[in-house]
Amino acid sequence: MDNQTNIWFEEECNGFCSQRFRIKKTLFSGKSKYQKIDIFESIGHGKILVIDGFVMLTERDEFIYHEMISHVPIFTHPNPRKVLVIGGGDGGTAREVLRHRNVEFCTMVEIDEMVVEVCKKFLPITASELDNERLNLIIDDGIKFVAETEERFDVVIIDSTDPIGPAEPLFGKEFYCNVNKILNDPGIVVAQGESPFYDPQIQVCMLKNQKESFPGIHMYNFANLSYPGGFWTFTFSAKGVSPLKDFDEKKVLDAKMPFKYYNSSLHKAAFALPQFMLDNYKDYLTELIEP
Amino acid sequence: MDNQTNIWFEEECNGFCSQRFRIKKTLFSGKSKYQKIDIFESIGHGKILVIDGFVMLTERDEFIYHEMISHVPIFTHPNPRKVLVIGGGDGGTAREVLRHRNVEFCTMVEIDEMVVEVCKKFLPITASELDNERLNLIIDDGIKFVAETEERFDVVIIDSTDPIGPAEPLFGKEFYCNVNKILNDPGIVVAQGESPFYDPQIQVCMLKNQKESFPGIHMYNFANLSYPGGFWTFTFSAKGVSPLKDFDEKKVLDAKMPFKYYNSSLHKAAFALPQFMLDNYKDYLTELIEP
Repeated sequence: MDNQTNIWFEEECNGFCSQRFRIKKTLFSGKSKYQKIDIFESIGHGKILVIDGFVMLTERDEFIYHEMISHVPIFTHPNPRKVLVIGGGDGGTAREVLRHRNVEFCTMVEIDEMVVEVCKKFLPITASELDNERLNLIIDDGIKFVAETEERFDVVIIDSTDPIGPAEPLFGKEFYCNVNKILNDPGIVVAQGESPFYDPQIQVCMLKNQKESFPGIHMYNFANLSYPGGFWTFTFSAKGVSPLKDFDEKKVLDAKMPFKYYNSSLHKAAFALPQFMLDNYKDYLTELIEP
Repeated sequence: MDNQTNIWFEEECNGFCSQRFRIKKTLFSGKSKYQKIDIFESIGHGKILVIDGFVMLTERDEFIYHEMISHVPIFTHPNPRKVLVIGGGDGGTAREVLRHRNVEFCTMVEIDEMVVEVCKKFLPITASELDNERLNLIIDDGIKFVAETEERFDVVIIDSTDPIGPAEPLFGKEFYCNVNKILNDPGIVVAQGESPFYDPQIQVCMLKNQKESFPGIHMYNFANLSYPGGFWTFTFSAKGVSPLKDFDEKKVLDAKMPFKYYNSSLHKAAFALPQFMLDNYKDYLTELIEP
């Protein structure tokens, strides 16, 4: 350890706590039209993608976020042929979506071309399928795409940064109203849902906005090493389908995918929320019926 | 924020990452016969208890660890009349154990009297039941107590620090052999189980040592803000009882306790492990049969 540099990347949270990662070197540092993008080579977490000072992913644990954002809705949906990803420029979500052979195509709308280019160059672990022929990659504003497209989807995945800067409208009422219009029935929209420890107000707001457009509102958890507090969520809003009652574990076993975090027991367990979350969100969450 | 001090407590993990908490002031700093003990008043997490440089608990999230270490075994056991806690000097585990009216007494064996005294003075939130008449608090070495006692218990809870310093033998083979001898049948022993992300070798070792003494070996998860990586575990080793098959959710509902993290769905969900944990520990874990 002695001949290693003593450089640390630090991400503060609410001004009262922080997480730090020890860095070997900076691989890329640039500013796009939308945001600041850094890629660090770390000592313990592989490469780290940082946007506007927030850790987006590390090579060590990115599998968790990407498996959980994609397999939970896709294995729930009875016939997931068309998938839309909003954001997700690093490619990790598309990589997991495309493992599903019954998905005919995945449309991915990322606003920031530089994120895609930088990840193709430095993060092949997530960007590996960005040239897949079943992927339709569009560089455009996801808000605008959802408002204007004539296409219809079975599953929509909102793989966004926090509700600051370009991602803010992705958390709003109007956006979810438009998502509902482009969703088939049955249809599922899953979105990055922030921290139940540090962002309960944002979570209430997301659930409230989604409840205006969808009959079924749920939240599920995962644990990772990249986001403050470690414990993080996705919202799962749907029409015509329930994440437990309509989930068939046999499909997961038959798929024989190389899961590192997801599995059929964890699919169901992820919807079991700690009591403080149930208490905070009871006005918005739909009761779950076990299969 | 401007008139606040800029003092941070930092806990490093493996030399490559760390967590920091912003501190208002130091309330206590001392050295017992066994370890260094600090209590800080933090900006965002209430008071923080630190032993030998490791965060033991924060007022903000201590309920998670203490609810999960105690309610999972006690609600599983058909008749938990006698409970033994090894360690747990802050009192939080005893507080939760004593909520169970069917527990006739709880014996708690803490090696370090200074931890108890300091927590009584500065952490009434956890120490509130340390003078409860159903609590038999013994200041002694837990290893020795378990090897010598003539008493028998239904549930044993190992609420220990990491396997460095005085707690190290609490992770060993001989200790679990002795725990088995003082456990009734059915009987359960639950132990602080470290991080599946950062300590998989310690976890393999714990499971292996426990498997030599117990027929049923399980692990369950919780998420908190105090320990590196956030995602943490307890081992659950038992004879004559299974954490899912013998768990009756009705008992949880009837108990009407003020849970903030634990609930009956989460009890079952906590045993659903991520795939990388199943892969790492498959030689040691007993297969779970759902109720």
